[in-house]
Amino acid sequence: MPIRTPLCGLFGIKYPVLLAPMAGVSGGTLAAAVSRAGGLGLIGGGYGDAEWLTRAFDDAGDARVGVGFITWALARQPRLLDLALDRNPVALMLSFGDFKPFLERIRSAQSKLIVQVQTLDQARAAVDAGVDAIVAQGTEAGGHGGARATLPFVPAVVDIAQGVPIIAAGGIADGRGVTAALALGATGALCGTTFFASDESLASESAKQAALCGSGDHTERSSVFDVARDLDWPSDWNLRTLRNTFTRRWSADMAGLNQNLATERDRFNAAIAAEDTDIAPVIVGEAADLIHARRPAKAILDEMMAQAEDRVRCLGKSVAPIKEE
Amino acid sequence: MPIRTPLCGLFGIKYPVLLAPMAGVSGGTLAAAVSRAGGLGLIGGGYGDAEWLTRAFDDAGDARVGVGFITWALARQPRLLDLALDRNPVALMLSFGDFKPFLERIRSAQSKLIVQVQTLDQARAAVDAGVDAIVAQGTEAGGHGGARATLPFVPAVVDIAQGVPIIAAGGIADGRGVTAALALGATGALCGTTFFASDESLASESAKQAALCGSGDHTERSSVFDVARDLDWPSDWNLRTLRNTFTRRWSADMAGLNQNLATERDRFNAAIAAEDTDIAPVIVGEAADLIHARRPAKAILDEMMAQAEDRVRCLGKSVAPIKEE
Repeated sequence: MPIRTPLCGLFGIKYPVLLAPMAGVSGGTLAAAVSRAGGLGLIGGGYGDAEWLTRAFDDAGDARVGVGFITWALARQPRLLDLALDRNPVALMLSFGDFKPFLERIRSAQSKLIVQVQTLDQARAAVDAGVDAIVAQGTEAGGHGGARATLPFVPAVVDIAQGVPIIAAGGIADGRGVTAALALGATGALCGTTFFASDESLASESAKQAALCGSGDHTERSSVFDVARDLDWPSDWNLRTLRNTFTRRWSADMAGLNQNLATERDRFNAAIAAEDTDIAPVIVGEAADLIHARRPAKAILDEMMAQAEDRVRCLGKSVAPIKEE
Repeated sequence: MPIRTPLCGLFGIKYPVLLAPMAGVSGGTLAAAVSRAGGLGLIGGGYGDAEWLTRAFDDAGDARVGVGFITWALARQPRLLDLALDRNPVALMLSFGDFKPFLERIRSAQSKLIVQVQTLDQARAAVDAGVDAIVAQGTEAGGHGGARATLPFVPAVVDIAQGVPIIAAGGIADGRGVTAALALGATGALCGTTFFASDESLASESAKQAALCGSGDHTERSSVFDVARDLDWPSDWNLRTLRNTFTRRWSADMAGLNQNLATERDRFNAAIAAEDTDIAPVIVGEAADLIHARRPAKAILDEMMAQAEDRVRCLGKSVAPIKEE
């Protein structure tokens, strides 16, 4: 019997684990694999590409999946929300920006709205708006994020949540992390890095290998890749990746990068095309230490939850039963 | 019956919780209060002041306490180690620097050696040296620290520990954090922020009030206070404090601070004397959100462990018992 939390009822899932909607990585096949294995797969809608999104939903087939968007990017092409809602996603997750303009359309479409937050003020706004669930994301997460760390941030969000289910994100890649998330008061976990190197992930083979060999000691948050990709991210958030030649050259010299932008963009785009992870970003978090082999998403999720159940039983043995009165 | 882990046996304690040896804050009275309440109090030996240290051990009376030093500072006045070992501390904790020169003297004194680490390489060195326990410290901790976050760092250290007990530090201020630490594979927790505002802490009254009113959203890591205090910290580590007028003015302009150092040091020293937390540092971590009242250390520790036991029981209810074969 697996671990059950209220999140399982909310989304109709077996395991309280969500696939992070990693842009360009969480395609329909990966999202469907996570959902079929018992979690909830979220397609990575990212910066918004109608053709890519349509293919992702097609690839997911009849699996019950959700989808996530970068909120400030969705605001620039709001029709993508209709495209997504037409596919009846179980949940729609919005991260990085003002979700309120989209609230009513998502509600009337009977999709659950998940909002990801990186500060307590953002969490308060999501609670006040009556969203269905909140992802409290720690800075150890791969990809874009803020400055708070998962372990103290999650209980602080739980304390102001007024019953809204909190999902922990950032640094959770195995059953130990899932159990810790539940101990902190979260009702589930959202995981990216651990699925980045799965068979079904759309990451390049070289990026998967780099992630598997990488360490949390060798990641950092920076804006170098956003500048190289010409993405005008708000300054509240930057990108955690593995360190490579590109970050080592430019992350402490953003002015230099901007001065050499034409050359560096050419170099960067060539590296993307060549899947050269010495220049191209490998977008994983500190949990890179905890992933060791390229496997199907189902194997990852099954092992994660078996380990979580084992951890819960081990913890139970540390505490004597309550004396009957 | 409280939660028991192997750490309880190692140190002869009831609760697997250690008081962080906060310099200038964890005096003998606080360390003794934590030890008498069932944990292990570590006196904050800090930068090393023989007179202060002697008084701290005197203040601890007959309580079984330990002591922590900043390793690079201890290396400058190694005779302080003799002073400490003469008091038969339960454990001696070394943080920030090369602990190996002190290993043999601590061993032959029958004191347990705890080494605090912020990277996996540091953890490997501590394991190889055969230390008695390792504190894996996340960046969310108050005071000096590194870049890794507690939630993914602790299991990564556990995986290379070869059985050396791992103690989690950073962001742990209540029973949820303690339970999460154990879920991650740690055998206990080291807590600073939650005891910073205790009755017995040597922090100023204004600093305690600022800590209680503060939020993890309003802390940051910086070197401004080390520069102001003329402490030549190695660049691997910087200081997490609440943001205040001083950090807002200088943390993004270290060159400016260095240019105005004479004036700013006068201002800083006056603020320290006046206990003015607008300029003087309030050295707490992201767990500031989780502390709400000035209380005796025993009340803090008892509530922490009662909550941890409750969390373990709640987790147990999420998992069905193993079916008997």
